[in-house]
Amino acid sequence: MAEERDTRLLQIESMIRRLLRRKADVHLGNALEKVHPAEAAHIFRNLEPEERLQAFQVVANTEHRASILAESDVDIVREILEPMPDENIVSLLKEIEGDDVRYLLDTLSEERSGEVVKLLSADEPTSIEVLLAYDPETAGGIMTDAFVALSEEMSVEDAVTEVRKASEVDYVFYVYVVDEYKKLRGVISLRELMLSQPSQELSDIMTSNVWFVNVHADQEHVSRLVSRYNILAIPVVDDAGVLAGIVTVDDVIDVLRKEATEDMLKMAGTHAEEITDLTARRMAWVRFPWLFVSWLGGIVAASLIGLFEEDIRRVIALTAFMPVIIGMAGNVGTQSATIIVRGLATGRVNPNAWMRVVYKQLIAGLILGVAYGILLGILAVFQFRSVAYLGMVVGLSIAITMTLAGLLSSFLPLLLHRLRFDPAVATGPFVTTGVDIIGIFIYFSIARLLLA
Amino acid sequence: MAEERDTRLLQIESMIRRLLRRKADVHLGNALEKVHPAEAAHIFRNLEPEERLQAFQVVANTEHRASILAESDVDIVREILEPMPDENIVSLLKEIEGDDVRYLLDTLSEERSGEVVKLLSADEPTSIEVLLAYDPETAGGIMTDAFVALSEEMSVEDAVTEVRKASEVDYVFYVYVVDEYKKLRGVISLRELMLSQPSQELSDIMTSNVWFVNVHADQEHVSRLVSRYNILAIPVVDDAGVLAGIVTVDDVIDVLRKEATEDMLKMAGTHAEEITDLTARRMAWVRFPWLFVSWLGGIVAASLIGLFEEDIRRVIALTAFMPVIIGMAGNVGTQSATIIVRGLATGRVNPNAWMRVVYKQLIAGLILGVAYGILLGILAVFQFRSVAYLGMVVGLSIAITMTLAGLLSSFLPLLLHRLRFDPAVATGPFVTTGVDIIGIFIYFSIARLLLA
Repeated sequence: MAEERDTRLLQIESMIRRLLRRKADVHLGNALEKVHPAEAAHIFRNLEPEERLQAFQVVANTEHRASILAESDVDIVREILEPMPDENIVSLLKEIEGDDVRYLLDTLSEERSGEVVKLLSADEPTSIEVLLAYDPETAGGIMTDAFVALSEEMSVEDAVTEVRKASEVDYVFYVYVVDEYKKLRGVISLRELMLSQPSQELSDIMTSNVWFVNVHADQEHVSRLVSRYNILAIPVVDDAGVLAGIVTVDDVIDVLRKEATEDMLKMAGTHAEEITDLTARRMAWVRFPWLFVSWLGGIVAASLIGLFEEDIRRVIALTAFMPVIIGMAGNVGTQSATIIVRGLATGRVNPNAWMRVVYKQLIAGLILGVAYGILLGILAVFQFRSVAYLGMVVGLSIAITMTLAGLLSSFLPLLLHRLRFDPAVATGPFVTTGVDIIGIFIYFSIARLLLA
Repeated sequence: MAEERDTRLLQIESMIRRLLRRKADVHLGNALEKVHPAEAAHIFRNLEPEERLQAFQVVANTEHRASILAESDVDIVREILEPMPDENIVSLLKEIEGDDVRYLLDTLSEERSGEVVKLLSADEPTSIEVLLAYDPETAGGIMTDAFVALSEEMSVEDAVTEVRKASEVDYVFYVYVVDEYKKLRGVISLRELMLSQPSQELSDIMTSNVWFVNVHADQEHVSRLVSRYNILAIPVVDDAGVLAGIVTVDDVIDVLRKEATEDMLKMAGTHAEEITDLTARRMAWVRFPWLFVSWLGGIVAASLIGLFEEDIRRVIALTAFMPVIIGMAGNVGTQSATIIVRGLATGRVNPNAWMRVVYKQLIAGLILGVAYGILLGILAVFQFRSVAYLGMVVGLSIAITMTLAGLLSSFLPLLLHRLRFDPAVATGPFVTTGVDIIGIFIYFSIARLLLA
């Protein structure tokens, strides 16, 4: 489906470019002030670094500047923060919430980030050091500490007053109820609060059967819960059951997008979401090791072919069908592997029923292999009439190789998943290279048997 | 990253299986009643069809049954609805919201769906026919008509009463403000409503700069807006500006997941999210046409190799390096294509700066090609000392082919995007097959020149 162009954004972008060219800093500042931080970040991405710095600096409002950064890609954040004095970074960080603070800090070197955190904590006793202690890919790493937690005995009337006071909390849709030890006891939606009698106690109206996750829960688990149960925010508790933060649905969306991107790139044999922002040289460097699998496999394939040199010398026509056999088996393998890897990620493939899953891919591979084997076998007979049995060799090889490709490329990701490795990571180059080698071996072995 | 097991779900599943085996229908019904519809749907997916039907039938509460269906996969919904009398389907549909009604109806045949809609509209004058008129992949197709719209002159006090009355609307986090013609004028969050004076008019407290989309807007556009601006629901207006529905963030998450899955499967040369649920034979049928590209390309490759038969006969060792050359070029091509396709989907690749994007992939391909060309060239010299220049032929070929692969596989998706085709659809098999043919041609041409 063709993408709908975002005309509004394009208009704003061309206006910003115009103001930049004219060096109309005051107008530029005013214009950017009115643009949503996410839009500004989107436009900044398309500017040259100097233009970007100029545009960023004319935004007068610190909170707006901080929000734009929080919406920007890692490399752009780094580019803007690196030359900035520590104190300026601190004043930006004070304007935004815990999870965004963390995002910006993570773009700095460890040393520099430590210094900034020290300054930040000295100024105001924040919980940022606590947040930073969690692995960035866990619930603790993506949660925010901006939430409203009230005690069980509080009245609805007082709760409303508390919500009113919590003006710095952006995302108030739920109020969390905690006991005297700050342990999570229940949740009340803002709507329920609104519809209750002012004199009621929170413990009377709260839902006590509340979804929550542990601070150490994997971010994928968190996003699966939030998306499965259609909730807007999930509370995060520490090992003692104390409410430590919440993960909001907007962060869940970011996790889902990031995970999908990572899976796609890993399957293609590369990594890092930020890869589009790297220089060509860095990008080549990141991709180099993944191709090494393919290179090694190619050498194995070359040696293997060397073993069949005499057969090839006798029937040169054999070489003509080598690419189509390994190409088709590779494609069948990629299809199966992608179906399994994505199915595991979305929960549509049940890893406990792995035998049935693999069997299905095996049968699909067999059907496709036999169909294309017959098609290709017939073609081979017509193209090289002189060589007896060539059609049969080619047809049989493609049928067997495609069947095995279906089997292996569904079994491998399931095995990796069972062993708690990421099934996406090894699937791309491993599958295609493995299938290449198997295909070559089967093809020339059958040729030796039948064409002898 | 290893996936965290969902122990709670596994426990519930084994309990349900136990009750099914014991045919303890009453207990089973009670147990399922207490399980979240999404959890029940998840467990149902792992059951055999007969068990599933049994479990579904013992759920006494119609709303709960309907909600479980709304959370189930297409094929399971179809399996359960098909044998059900029309009247029963109608009573299920009455319990759920517009977008879910549509989801269930879409699993029926067009004829049957029409009959059910007729019954449904006869019973209560619903807007379901209006909803069904929209393309399923547009804002109109995924929106729900369950929202609260109030007039500009209404007081906050009356608005609160209206929210109280709208108990059937699940997702009240915003109240929409409309004029006398039902045109969208503004939005008020529940929190703002709660914090305002009871006597104020809605027009005084509403935000009039509100994000909205047209009913015909592409669902990808809608989900991009919602995720970019971190909003929980976006209003949908018809061509006259009249508020027709809202798209909520949980539906946006579904769209994002579905789009990512589709892109991945398309790039692997297959389609349809439901592919995991198909039988092996159906799955082979769906995948067959995509492999045809690869088959055709293989035949072209075979003919091409035929042209170089004499060269191969002279230097048999040439065949040994054919797989590694096309394999590595194919992998570099897949890397580049994936980076571009996913970057276009997430907005990280700017299609207007296509020259820079392609140039970067070209340079990355060149760097990788030269590096692996040198590595492989040296190896070829050592492995086949007898053949002069073979190392140079292999090294040069791999360098040139990988460079071209980087160029073509980044240019192709950008071109498709510009022509308003889906860049993912043609990338997988087209890229690998195209690169195969180019690689073979370059390799044997260089061989003929240098080994003559």
